[in-house]
Amino acid sequence: MTAPLKIGVAGLGTVGCGLISLIAKRGHDLARPAGRDIVVTAVSARDRSKDRGVALDGYRWFTDAVQLAAAADVDVVVELIGGACGVAKSLSEAAIAAGKHVVTANKALIAHHGTELAKAAEAAGVTLAYEAAVAGGIPIVKALREGLAGNRIERVYGILNGTCNYILSEMADSGREFDEVLVEAQEHGYAESDPSFDVDGIDTAHKLAILASIAFGSEVDIESVYTEGIRHVSPVDIEFAAELGYGIKLLGVASRTDSGIEQRVHPCMVPMDAPINHVFGVFNGVVAEGDFVDTTIYQGRGAGAGPTASAVVADLIDIAQGRTVPTFGVAAAELKRLEPVSMKHHSGAYYVRLMVVDQPGVFAGIATSLKSHEVSMESVLQRARDPGEPVPVVMTVHETDEAAILCTLAEIAELDAVVELPRMIRIEML
Amino acid sequence: MTAPLKIGVAGLGTVGCGLISLIAKRGHDLARPAGRDIVVTAVSARDRSKDRGVALDGYRWFTDAVQLAAAADVDVVVELIGGACGVAKSLSEAAIAAGKHVVTANKALIAHHGTELAKAAEAAGVTLAYEAAVAGGIPIVKALREGLAGNRIERVYGILNGTCNYILSEMADSGREFDEVLVEAQEHGYAESDPSFDVDGIDTAHKLAILASIAFGSEVDIESVYTEGIRHVSPVDIEFAAELGYGIKLLGVASRTDSGIEQRVHPCMVPMDAPINHVFGVFNGVVAEGDFVDTTIYQGRGAGAGPTASAVVADLIDIAQGRTVPTFGVAAAELKRLEPVSMKHHSGAYYVRLMVVDQPGVFAGIATSLKSHEVSMESVLQRARDPGEPVPVVMTVHETDEAAILCTLAEIAELDAVVELPRMIRIEML
Repeated sequence: MTAPLKIGVAGLGTVGCGLISLIAKRGHDLARPAGRDIVVTAVSARDRSKDRGVALDGYRWFTDAVQLAAAADVDVVVELIGGACGVAKSLSEAAIAAGKHVVTANKALIAHHGTELAKAAEAAGVTLAYEAAVAGGIPIVKALREGLAGNRIERVYGILNGTCNYILSEMADSGREFDEVLVEAQEHGYAESDPSFDVDGIDTAHKLAILASIAFGSEVDIESVYTEGIRHVSPVDIEFAAELGYGIKLLGVASRTDSGIEQRVHPCMVPMDAPINHVFGVFNGVVAEGDFVDTTIYQGRGAGAGPTASAVVADLIDIAQGRTVPTFGVAAAELKRLEPVSMKHHSGAYYVRLMVVDQPGVFAGIATSLKSHEVSMESVLQRARDPGEPVPVVMTVHETDEAAILCTLAEIAELDAVVELPRMIRIEML
Repeated sequence: MTAPLKIGVAGLGTVGCGLISLIAKRGHDLARPAGRDIVVTAVSARDRSKDRGVALDGYRWFTDAVQLAAAADVDVVVELIGGACGVAKSLSEAAIAAGKHVVTANKALIAHHGTELAKAAEAAGVTLAYEAAVAGGIPIVKALREGLAGNRIERVYGILNGTCNYILSEMADSGREFDEVLVEAQEHGYAESDPSFDVDGIDTAHKLAILASIAFGSEVDIESVYTEGIRHVSPVDIEFAAELGYGIKLLGVASRTDSGIEQRVHPCMVPMDAPINHVFGVFNGVVAEGDFVDTTIYQGRGAGAGPTASAVVADLIDIAQGRTVPTFGVAAAELKRLEPVSMKHHSGAYYVRLMVVDQPGVFAGIATSLKSHEVSMESVLQRARDPGEPVPVVMTVHETDEAAILCTLAEIAELDAVVELPRMIRIEML
C-alpha cells in the first residue's frame, strides 16, 4: 500500500471538527476506497484553548493557516475557513503554489476566484476540489461534472440554501410571516444572526455560479447572477400560489437561451407536483437537464457537519487514488467566456398581486397597461370585496419579457386605485 | 492531445444505436471533458442488412462479437448484448484478457459474474465499468461508489425497474387491474412481450445486488436476493394502502441488520409523503443512507437509448481521462463475503388483507392466531358487510418476524370464514 495521504485542516468550526470526527471514526477503513490511509497531520485555527468536542492532540497546530501550505507533512490542504478573500484565498493560492492539493467547502471563494484558482491548480499539477461547496452532502459536482459529462446540459436549477427552504416551508405550513419564521430559524440554528447572506440569495448565487460553470464548461461568472432573496415573499402569496397550483421556492436557475446564458436566483412559483416542490425543510435539491439523459434529480442535506465532511472526504479519496478531473470538467484554459443574458431579457410567465381599492375603472386601467406592453393575462383571481378596503387582485400572465412586465407594473403602480407596490413572482416552467 | 480512445460497440439495439448517435452528435466536443477524442472504430451485430436508423458505414463490422476483443483498433469494448452468460460473458472475458477496458450496460452479467470479472479486470489492469447497468441515466454507481465513499452505508433502496413503476403508477391512477395495465404497457413499449424478467422482480434483483456490493464493499451475491414481483398487487390493496397513508412501490432494499446483510425485492408500502413515493411512471429513484451524509436521493430515467448512452459515455470519459476506480469501490480481493440474512428473519411491519364471510367467531379465530405467534395488530379496517358475501378485512401489524407473520397467515387461511388466500404486503419504514 502507498504512503498515507496527509491532510492539513484549516478552520476548526462545525465542519472542520466534523471532518476530523469522520476520519477518526472511519480510521483504517478509509483505506478500502482510498487505496491508502488518510491521516490528519496538522490543523489550524486561531483559538487553541477552545473546547471543540473532538480530540486535537497529536496534530501539529498552526495559528497562521497559511503556514499549512509550507508544512512538509501536508499533501492536501483542506480549507474550511470561508470567505471569498482573506486567509482562505491566501492559503489556497499558497498551497497550490507549493504543489499541494486543495479541498475546500468555500463557495464564495470558488464563485469569485474559481477560474483563476483552477488555472493555477492545473499549471501546478494539483487538484482543486470543492464537492462540499455546493449542496453539502449531495455529490452534485461529481454527478454533473463526470456522471453527465456526455450531455449538453440545457438547464440546471435547484434549492441550494437550506435556510431559505426551511423558512419558506415553515411559512407554507403555518401561514406565518417571514420575520416571525426567521426568528424561529435563528433560534433553531438554521439561520445566522446576520441572515442576509442566506435570505438575500447571495449564498444561492455562489453555488449557482459554480454549477453553471460545470454545466456549461464556462468560466465562473458570479457577477452576472441576478440575485433576489425571499424577504418579500408573503404568506398571502404562498396561499394564492397554492390556489393556482404552485408552490414557492427560492431557486437558482442557470440555463442556455437563444441569446446566451441566464443565471438567476429568485423566488419561483413551481408546479405543485414538480419534484423540486417536494424538497422540504433544510434539504437541498438539484435538477440537471441534459439532451441525452433528460431530467435527473438529486436531493439531500445541504449543510451540517456530517454531510459536508462526507463531501470533503469524497474529494480526499479521489486525490488519494490519483483520480484527477479538471476543476470545472474541462481544462481551465478551455473554459469559455459565455455571453450573459441580462435579466430584463428574461422571458417567462409571471404571478402578479395588486392591492386595489374597488372603484370604477380600475380594471380598465390595469387592462390598458397590460395591452400597451403586449402582456397577455392567463388568469385572474379576486377575493370578496369590502367597499373602501384594499383587496388583493391576483393575475398570472403568459410568457413575456421581464422588461415588459416591469414597465407594466410600474405603470399600474401609478393608478390611484392601486394602494401598494405590486408584487411579482416569476413562474418557472418545469 | 493524446491519441483518440477507440471504441468497439457490441450490440446494435436501441442502446447501441443511441450510443453511436451520441458520439456522432457530440463529436469533437467530447474531447473537452474526455481530454481526447472518443471514436467508434468497430461494431458488432449479427444482422448487417437491418436499417437501424444510424449511419454505420466507416466502422469495421464483426459478425462475431468476441472478435472485438482481438481487434487492434479497439481500446474499449462496449458490451450492449445483454444476458448473464453467452456472448456477453465470453466477450467481456476475452476483452479483459486482451488488456482492453470493458464498459457494459448488462446488469445480469455484473450481478452473476461481477466479482470474478472485477478480479480479472484488476489483474489485467483494465477498467470494468457499468454505470448504465443500474438505474439508466442516473449516475448512481458513481454517486455511491465515489461520492459517498466516506460513509458507512446503512441502507440503499430504490425503484429500479421502470416497467413495474409504470404499471403500479397506472394502477394507482386508474384503479385498473395488473393484467389490463400490463397489456397497455406492452402496447406502449414499456414492457416486453415476455414481461416476467421485469414484473417478477428479477431485473430489480440484479440491480439491487450490484448496488449492495458497492454499498457494503462486498462480493456480488445475487443468489441471496429474496425476489417477489408485482403480479399479485391488486387495485383493492392500492386503495386500502392509500386509506392507510401509504403508496405501493416495487422496491429493491439492501440493508445492514444485526445478523447480516438483507437483500430483498418485493412490493412495499411506503409512506405517502416519502420522496420515493413521488417517483412516478417509468422513472427510477434510489435512496442511499450513510452515517455522515444522512439520506440522499437520486431520480431519473432508468432506461431508454438516451439515458443509457449518457451513462456509457460517462464511463468512457473516465477511461479516456485515466481515472480508475475499483469495480465495486474497493480492491476486488478485499471484497467481503457478507453473511446473508434469510427472509424468514426479516423484521418489519406488515399489511394483511383477508377476504372473510361474516360469521360468528371469525374475529376470535384471527385474534387467537395473531396472539399465538406474538403478532401485534396496529390497525384494522373493515368495509360495510353484506351478509353471505365475502368482505375485505384489512390489518396492519407492528414490527414482527417474517416467520411469525407467515405462520399466522397460514393458520388464518385455514379458518372456514376466510375464503381466499390472505394477501400480505410489507411496510417499509422510511
